[in-house]
Amino acid sequence: MNFVDIIIKKRDGGKLDAEEINYFVAGVTDGSLPDYQISALLMAILLKGMDEEETAQLTMGMAVSGNTIDLSSVEGFKVDKHSTGGVADTTTLILAPLVASVGVPVVKMSGRGLGFSGGTIDKLESIPGFRVDVLEEQALAFARKSGIVVMSQTDDLTPADKKLYAMRDVTGTVDSIPLIAASIMSKKIAAGADGIVLDVKCGSGAFMKDLESAESLAEIMVSMGRRVGRKVTAVISGMDQPLGMYIGNSLEVMEAIEVLKGNVEGDLLEVSLTLGANMLLLAGRVQTETEGKELLMEQIRNGKGLEKFREMIAQQGGDVNIIDNYDLLPLSPVKMEVKADRDGYITKMDTAMIGRASQETGAGRMFKGQPLDFGAGIIMKKRTGGAIATGETLAIVYSESKEKCDSAAVFLKKAITIAEKPATEQPPLIWKIIRQED
Amino acid sequence: MNFVDIIIKKRDGGKLDAEEINYFVAGVTDGSLPDYQISALLMAILLKGMDEEETAQLTMGMAVSGNTIDLSSVEGFKVDKHSTGGVADTTTLILAPLVASVGVPVVKMSGRGLGFSGGTIDKLESIPGFRVDVLEEQALAFARKSGIVVMSQTDDLTPADKKLYAMRDVTGTVDSIPLIAASIMSKKIAAGADGIVLDVKCGSGAFMKDLESAESLAEIMVSMGRRVGRKVTAVISGMDQPLGMYIGNSLEVMEAIEVLKGNVEGDLLEVSLTLGANMLLLAGRVQTETEGKELLMEQIRNGKGLEKFREMIAQQGGDVNIIDNYDLLPLSPVKMEVKADRDGYITKMDTAMIGRASQETGAGRMFKGQPLDFGAGIIMKKRTGGAIATGETLAIVYSESKEKCDSAAVFLKKAITIAEKPATEQPPLIWKIIRQED
Repeated sequence: MNFVDIIIKKRDGGKLDAEEINYFVAGVTDGSLPDYQISALLMAILLKGMDEEETAQLTMGMAVSGNTIDLSSVEGFKVDKHSTGGVADTTTLILAPLVASVGVPVVKMSGRGLGFSGGTIDKLESIPGFRVDVLEEQALAFARKSGIVVMSQTDDLTPADKKLYAMRDVTGTVDSIPLIAASIMSKKIAAGADGIVLDVKCGSGAFMKDLESAESLAEIMVSMGRRVGRKVTAVISGMDQPLGMYIGNSLEVMEAIEVLKGNVEGDLLEVSLTLGANMLLLAGRVQTETEGKELLMEQIRNGKGLEKFREMIAQQGGDVNIIDNYDLLPLSPVKMEVKADRDGYITKMDTAMIGRASQETGAGRMFKGQPLDFGAGIIMKKRTGGAIATGETLAIVYSESKEKCDSAAVFLKKAITIAEKPATEQPPLIWKIIRQED
Repeated sequence: MNFVDIIIKKRDGGKLDAEEINYFVAGVTDGSLPDYQISALLMAILLKGMDEEETAQLTMGMAVSGNTIDLSSVEGFKVDKHSTGGVADTTTLILAPLVASVGVPVVKMSGRGLGFSGGTIDKLESIPGFRVDVLEEQALAFARKSGIVVMSQTDDLTPADKKLYAMRDVTGTVDSIPLIAASIMSKKIAAGADGIVLDVKCGSGAFMKDLESAESLAEIMVSMGRRVGRKVTAVISGMDQPLGMYIGNSLEVMEAIEVLKGNVEGDLLEVSLTLGANMLLLAGRVQTETEGKELLMEQIRNGKGLEKFREMIAQQGGDVNIIDNYDLLPLSPVKMEVKADRDGYITKMDTAMIGRASQETGAGRMFKGQPLDFGAGIIMKKRTGGAIATGETLAIVYSESKEKCDSAAVFLKKAITIAEKPATEQPPLIWKIIRQED
């Protein structure tokens, strides 16, 4: 097979067949294809697209390009969850223990964050002692015992995706819906869960800025699941302001615990319940989303969700005392209040820019491998829609230096629009839920 | 400057500015840009295009990426010629001596052929002793003395084009009109001539299969010339059958000599005169194309064209006796006649496939650097439009083995369509001539 012919076929808008896609994935995995041919094909795919069949083929090819996790030794219907990423999106730390606490095993592998704040793995690492690098056998043992494990993606998973992901980043080929879908789904399939709930974020703080592209991505991933025999539901949720009020690593752990304690309501709780209820639906544990949400709320009220969180921390070597004493979690020494300089209404938040502010504090990475300041971040004091008066606190910034706080404050102020009149409409929190048809 | 941003700009259909294109060319030339980024941009350019301004910028950037030839020490208006390549296209060997013989200096650098038959350089090398690798100083001396030199492109010319050309070949990014135009024109500009006549071939044996793409390429190259201060005329000529009757290296040298001797008329002579007359027009040596053609025909009749050809051969170390004794030129030992197996009319020739037949004889390269069999090739006996009877000879194949002749014969027979009735229309020989407006 001549790879140039494959590139030309896609360049001219043709459809790649299974043999051609497998040849591509094999050549990426074993390093036999030169980088310049890979990147030429990636650009052709970005500009000419791939249909569902091609995307499914690429997904499955990447999924089996390395080790795949066999969860059959864990009893029950195993569920997993993935978010396309947003600001103050700490739903995993809330829903994983809630869902596991009603007997549906959650086995979740997560990546490290690159951007606004750390990823789930980074947040968990801010808990003293918590180990995210768990061997496969150990993870299976945790899942069998407690029904929950949240860990770093093992190194030998989906090498083809790792290579393509790195390549896309440096060749302007990130924004391709089929390539994004294949990247996400290949990892989820290799990780072995029976059911997967995808949180596709949509809005100013998300990778997908508009509903149309979020829907395309969601639909193709749900359809991928059907093609490869996994149950998949996609929730399109709003990211036009930070989801929770805490942005950072230890700060988001605190907020998650507060939610599990039943002390916090609002958007973060609502999205966590929606995602969690859909995981229960996939597992057949409940019959309706409403029933699922009710069941999970009950696990907050009776403390069983928090108990499961404690169990997970203990199991992975973390200090469980943080749950009752937040002083045991890192918090950066310099604190700065960011205040409103006019009266009015908060009509809009440029959420990506708030994420940028979080990066400035040291809570998020600017480049791969950058060490994080686990105690840095932002506590938001306001949400869009509300009235605000001059001098009122918009947010509190935590960082290791005054300079970093100043810098974060600049981005924060720029991000928040205060207008004379309230906005007539706010975008919804849950845009749409896309399910596989039976 | 971040190169990924440049890739993304083009990917999204944006226009690259001078600074961005120069950054690209500089990074290609000095090797600082990784291949995978270069190929991603090439694919984006192929699919999203470049306008005239961008193409001119890329052309000039590549033209000055290495050494440029200064022809100012050669008196007069220096002309050059380039063909996009066809089968039995040996016009250079005919028109260069004709044009030089009326006092217009021809300084032409040529590449080696990859495809149907050798390039001009390969054909000249089939003349015993002929040296195509000439140093710049020596070439200038030849041009000053005799007004003619046809030589191999020097190694230090347009390194950025060399790199991109090689890269395009292996990344499916050859068929981009702006990239083709920039590649051709950068080399012609670096080679220093004041006026350039481009022969853009169009038809079944050409890179451009249809008039529309041939016109696009021709127009952009003529316009490039205007932008960079060079006089350029493009002739769009037909390549729906081999231009001459001889295909090969020494075989084409023989046919060129026969034309210069006044023994052969037909399409090859007609295109040579058209191109040559347009070179004289650019140089201001004649006022009309007709006058130019007449003048060049006179140089055939009075033998001065052949004399100039002899002078060029002698000057570059070749054996001038070949002109009067073709036995001194190589000719492959095995000869095979290919005969018609039905009565009818030749309605069509798949000229690319005839080129393929020529490759089978050993006259053309399958891969870069492959040594050629200078004495191999095909003498065509028929042209399209004519009647043919069963058993009549269509072509004579020369090769070093019966196997190669057999193989060439298979392609030849497949290439020539014999139908019951003659075709109602034949495509024109000269489609169009595109000139710079004054």
